[in-house]
Amino acid sequence: MARNIQSLERAAAMLRLLAGGERRLGLSDVATALGLAKGTAHGILRTLQHEGFVEQDPASGRYQLGAELLRLGNSFLDVHELRARALVWTDDLARSSGESVYLGVLHQQGVLIVHHVFRPDDSRQVLEVGAMQPLHSTALGKVLSAYDPVAHTEAVEGEREAFTARTLTSEADFEGVLDLTRARGWAADVEETWEGLASIAAPIHDRRRMPVGAVGVAGAVERVCPDGELKPELVAAVRDCARAVSRDLGAGRF
Amino acid sequence: MARNIQSLERAAAMLRLLAGGERRLGLSDVATALGLAKGTAHGILRTLQHEGFVEQDPASGRYQLGAELLRLGNSFLDVHELRARALVWTDDLARSSGESVYLGVLHQQGVLIVHHVFRPDDSRQVLEVGAMQPLHSTALGKVLSAYDPVAHTEAVEGEREAFTARTLTSEADFEGVLDLTRARGWAADVEETWEGLASIAAPIHDRRRMPVGAVGVAGAVERVCPDGELKPELVAAVRDCARAVSRDLGAGRF
Repeated sequence: MARNIQSLERAAAMLRLLAGGERRLGLSDVATALGLAKGTAHGILRTLQHEGFVEQDPASGRYQLGAELLRLGNSFLDVHELRARALVWTDDLARSSGESVYLGVLHQQGVLIVHHVFRPDDSRQVLEVGAMQPLHSTALGKVLSAYDPVAHTEAVEGEREAFTARTLTSEADFEGVLDLTRARGWAADVEETWEGLASIAAPIHDRRRMPVGAVGVAGAVERVCPDGELKPELVAAVRDCARAVSRDLGAGRF
Repeated sequence: MARNIQSLERAAAMLRLLAGGERRLGLSDVATALGLAKGTAHGILRTLQHEGFVEQDPASGRYQLGAELLRLGNSFLDVHELRARALVWTDDLARSSGESVYLGVLHQQGVLIVHHVFRPDDSRQVLEVGAMQPLHSTALGKVLSAYDPVAHTEAVEGEREAFTARTLTSEADFEGVLDLTRARGWAADVEETWEGLASIAAPIHDRRRMPVGAVGVAGAVERVCPDGELKPELVAAVRDCARAVSRDLGAGRF
């Protein structure tokens, strides 16, 4: 009763394999990567294909992720209470700030973007819902690491890659930032993850006062952090939004 | 060797169950719905939970879809060649038409939206990537049914629900529309799926001249179909976009 089902674990490992790196893999590649016999790997792939989780390119015979994952991922968004409650507030934040708004939750070793409101201008922007952001260098990730003990463990124990010259990678520096985050109630990322981009984020709490996610704005460092100072009105707007969503989730005001 | 793996099929059925209808289900609900013993259902759910495909609400003990599906669904989008090729062209179409643009592919018994460009105004809009549209009543669905034999079979054999008074439900009417679609190279939906909405779509072909998807605009019937006539310049813009994406996929001009 206490054991997990091996074929399911292997199927999940295959999907993760196809989601990263090469993304189009032959049967031998899959079998080798997971240390399985070809026949075993083929049985799992064929079932995954039959269920729509995997597709096989007719020309090359290579496997890739299937459309059913997109459909189910969309259903996950529909059922996600935090996202549903945040839709209106994040829209307002994008409008008032003029910047892109992101809603993130802890997932595995990073921040999963569950909602993204485009910057309200006519520019071409790529939707980042479903994308992952690092915990140690982004504003969303710092907020989650500061307030959620599980995120904290993941960030401290995980590798903290230096994405730019400004990324803090030492544990002491990182803990210092988390102390500051808890003291002032918000976090920032000024070109610590992407050159030219700055972001500000604040925590969202639910009715049990548990940190369930983070919301933030991100944009060109020249706009978000002019003359090297984060714009106070942006910080206030992000915190207002986080409080509004928290209240909608049933969190008390104090 | 030829059999699919039962525990995987059951796990897929559970995910589909959680993606539709109630969406938050207890162990008994899941076991009953799938005709499984509770212990069997629990073993699968626990493994799915461990892999992040399912989450359990700590308060109620009910199961719902997990965040890993969103992450994998996003990876599916990244690897989707049609979508990657269409990004720029659909953006241009939204800009030139002033309407929402949708890119759809056949999935199961419907049209899966794999890309959605918002109408270029400041209005609040809900992203529909990952959503399903019916084959028999939407412009995208009619295009797929007209050009893709598999879609045609699904649409003819499936139930054709009357969403509005204008939905065509009889097989003869539907086949007539598909003949017209093939003859003129595009399809429309004027309040046949949603009251007040009209859409226009055209097929996308790949280098083997196979129909791999459809692209279209959708908007208020008053704008898309003023005085009961579909705007010719919108039809031309949609067909231009479909041709451009097809060329990018390697389809010949003739």
